[in-house]
Amino acid sequence: MQRQPFVAALAAAAALATTLPAAAQFRKPEDAVKYRQSVMAVQNFHLGRIFGMAGGRIPFDAKVVAEDAAVLDVTDKLPFVAFVDGSGPDKVPATNAKAEIWKERAKFDAAAAKMVEDVSKLNVAAKSGNIDQIKAAVGAVGQSCKACHDAYQKQ
Amino acid sequence: MQRQPFVAALAAAAALATTLPAAAQFRKPEDAVKYRQSVMAVQNFHLGRIFGMAGGRIPFDAKVVAEDAAVLDVTDKLPFVAFVDGSGPDKVPATNAKAEIWKERAKFDAAAAKMVEDVSKLNVAAKSGNIDQIKAAVGAVGQSCKACHDAYQKQ
Repeated sequence: MQRQPFVAALAAAAALATTLPAAAQFRKPEDAVKYRQSVMAVQNFHLGRIFGMAGGRIPFDAKVVAEDAAVLDVTDKLPFVAFVDGSGPDKVPATNAKAEIWKERAKFDAAAAKMVEDVSKLNVAAKSGNIDQIKAAVGAVGQSCKACHDAYQKQ
Repeated sequence: MQRQPFVAALAAAAALATTLPAAAQFRKPEDAVKYRQSVMAVQNFHLGRIFGMAGGRIPFDAKVVAEDAAVLDVTDKLPFVAFVDGSGPDKVPATNAKAEIWKERAKFDAAAAKMVEDVSKLNVAAKSGNIDQIKAAVGAVGQSCKACHDAYQKQ
């Protein structure tokens, strides 16, 4: 990943146009791609760890599952605001997103909403500390993630 | 950033050694570097947006500030578990971390703890919706971030 000194945060903020709504703030399409890839890399780690514990490949630790699920529950919606117009594969070679995302946006958004709902359930299960509930819930999250990646990520 | 298909999450989990504690799960030092850089890229965006609103360069939106602060409050501790032994600049060229992190770990950890404390205060301020409280709190977070980056990040 490209080097990102701390002062870049201030510089980036200073360069933002005041005409943009606060909810959509990427200076250029590459920033949006980097942001969504970064969020998903973080999610990948935490989801992978829950899968590892659910599958018995990592010793089960209820506290760690709860922390992982909390990270997922806060970050789950984040990537989707970054699929801004002009950040598809025709404009940003670094993206693995397929052009279909922008062609069938409602379907893409519905798939995202399904995942967000499943992550909320995982967060509830994680707080319960019940391994069977966690297994079922993380399986559902895995399915909703996979369905969207199969359809919208270059393989 | 390197491509990371969804199935990699499962493969990564499957490859993990069961002898590791759940809290420390990186297959190789490069994964730890990628993880901490990804988390900080996400934080950079959300912190930058609060700075932009605090400085009047982005229209103030209390809901967005609260969401940004919530992301920071959940992710603030995450990078530090990834500064594992063997993931310094002598082993992983991609890192911008200085070797000093591992030479003066207690000092580094104290700086991290200070930032985490300041982010908690920012989260409280963000929930209040009071712009003056938010300005003061985000300024403190900026200072604690900067102090650590000045000391421990290659410039």
